[in-house]
Amino acid sequence: MGRPVGRPPVWIMRQAGRYLPDYRRVRKLFPSFLDFCRSPEHVAEVTVQPVDHIGVDAAILFSDILVLLPPMGLNLEFVEGEGPVVHNPVRDAATIAAMPGGGDHDDINAELDYVFQGVRLTQRDLKGYVPLIGFAGGPFTVASYMVEGGSSKELARLKGLMFSDPKAFHMLLTKVSNLTAAYLIEQVRQGVDAVTIMDSWAGYLSPADYRTFVLPHTLSVIRRVKAQFPQIPVIHYANGAPTLLRDFVSLGADVVGLDWRVELQDAFKAHPGQTFQGNLDPCYLFAPPEKIRERVAEMKKVVGNRPHIFNLGHGILPQTPVENARAFVDAVHGE
Amino acid sequence: MGRPVGRPPVWIMRQAGRYLPDYRRVRKLFPSFLDFCRSPEHVAEVTVQPVDHIGVDAAILFSDILVLLPPMGLNLEFVEGEGPVVHNPVRDAATIAAMPGGGDHDDINAELDYVFQGVRLTQRDLKGYVPLIGFAGGPFTVASYMVEGGSSKELARLKGLMFSDPKAFHMLLTKVSNLTAAYLIEQVRQGVDAVTIMDSWAGYLSPADYRTFVLPHTLSVIRRVKAQFPQIPVIHYANGAPTLLRDFVSLGADVVGLDWRVELQDAFKAHPGQTFQGNLDPCYLFAPPEKIRERVAEMKKVVGNRPHIFNLGHGILPQTPVENARAFVDAVHGE
Repeated sequence: MGRPVGRPPVWIMRQAGRYLPDYRRVRKLFPSFLDFCRSPEHVAEVTVQPVDHIGVDAAILFSDILVLLPPMGLNLEFVEGEGPVVHNPVRDAATIAAMPGGGDHDDINAELDYVFQGVRLTQRDLKGYVPLIGFAGGPFTVASYMVEGGSSKELARLKGLMFSDPKAFHMLLTKVSNLTAAYLIEQVRQGVDAVTIMDSWAGYLSPADYRTFVLPHTLSVIRRVKAQFPQIPVIHYANGAPTLLRDFVSLGADVVGLDWRVELQDAFKAHPGQTFQGNLDPCYLFAPPEKIRERVAEMKKVVGNRPHIFNLGHGILPQTPVENARAFVDAVHGE
Repeated sequence: MGRPVGRPPVWIMRQAGRYLPDYRRVRKLFPSFLDFCRSPEHVAEVTVQPVDHIGVDAAILFSDILVLLPPMGLNLEFVEGEGPVVHNPVRDAATIAAMPGGGDHDDINAELDYVFQGVRLTQRDLKGYVPLIGFAGGPFTVASYMVEGGSSKELARLKGLMFSDPKAFHMLLTKVSNLTAAYLIEQVRQGVDAVTIMDSWAGYLSPADYRTFVLPHTLSVIRRVKAQFPQIPVIHYANGAPTLLRDFVSLGADVVGLDWRVELQDAFKAHPGQTFQGNLDPCYLFAPPEKIRERVAEMKKVVGNRPHIFNLGHGILPQTPVENARAFVDAVHGE
């Protein structure tokens, strides 16, 4: 990553996902989404699918940013049609103080062994054909589920804690950061070729609040991964956060993901030399293939010969036609 | 608006809302939310409540941006715990062509007479104590409900139409714009002192797509209102759209709303002379009153002696403690 290549690289966030019929077939084998994530053979199978079916240039490990929660003592369930539910959310300093993650000797990686098995099996199946990207959630985003007890549009409880009891908030994010860094480092040891930090909810903060409450924690994760593995590319992604772009760039990740709210030319102009990833609106894949090809051609003109990873600006939507996802990848490859 | 005043003005989006016990009492009288909106006496009552209870400097007409839908032939229902549902969404050019709004003689204002009665009754009750602000949705946001059939996180169908059949999309937005302009003009005729255009979903577009697909329609609404009533202040609000700020400013509204993702000092610097409204994170009202006062003091330092309307960056959340809303208003007033 970062080096000019023969043809522009492309992959898609959530590329191992419901828009693929073969994914849906495997998904049906498991009543519980978490059990699916915990089955390394099936993780490897669906991780490889988009490489075969739509021709992306990297495999992205199939997993979920919330796998950290059960080893941290949270009772996590994925409820059909509702998403993740945490039955014992953390909302006060005492509960946070009692959680693991306070010291270097706290280790939840043993309980995440199924992820690392998935990494090894995927690498066995990929046979070096394309790189494998691992990932974890950004500490703020992961903490949001712990405090809110599930998905939330406003993050009212999380921000309530942040604004009312900053000390407890920082304690929680420090613990999540410690465990996230250890988790990503272990993913690399087990064989992933790059890692992504998905801080999906960071864009719901004001720039000042992001800098005070979140940036130091994400930075500490990235620094610890880079300290152990300087050669492993780190990708940072957040959604809906165009005013935070300079802050994301300041984190020192090798690649900074952009959603579609940032104009590519503005990002290139403001941050020459930075490799970006993105940023087609995922809804563009509902347009017919010829329109997708036109849009990719426009993106390519803007990118020019800069190092850039073509991707959507957010995860691919489940109702996306497979042939349109393939049209996107093919258009990037110039076919 | 726009003139320096003795003390900074403050009001709150959704200030007539569920966080007020007196609002909840009135709301309970109506099993259906639309029936509540259609009762001018009760509309006047809840519109005035926040002026009395938390001391805001303007009343904002209690209504909903979706009242335009039934007169346009859409079967709208507010489902408890789910929000608005449109039972016959519009998704193709033929349906759009058959809708009203195509010409100047199309008039749905007669069917919205209950809104205008609400305006007159509110003004009777306000007795000139504070101004009354009317509003309508931005054409893009209103159209989103028509096409999606309700609220949507991704706007996949709306954007699908936009990217696949731009002609049909523009026809829809032209019709909504025509009726919205006529609706706002009638609100002014009936007595509102200012109008807000709430384009809540505009921030879900890339800047290029906003300029192509949305800006011309919003501009046409604002221009028509200003052509009839040059002295009536127009406020524009959108959420989550910091990269679109210069486009919003270009619309020519008297006041441009900012959510909390934009730093006030950046907005002032980029657009000297523009009056803004905003932009405290609504979740800040979950912090204790002394922290709210501190934050408002910081905002005041940034604002200095510029004309600025203090407000939240988005609607007040239903679970907000009333005393915290009052602390915010009092802090702005310097009490």
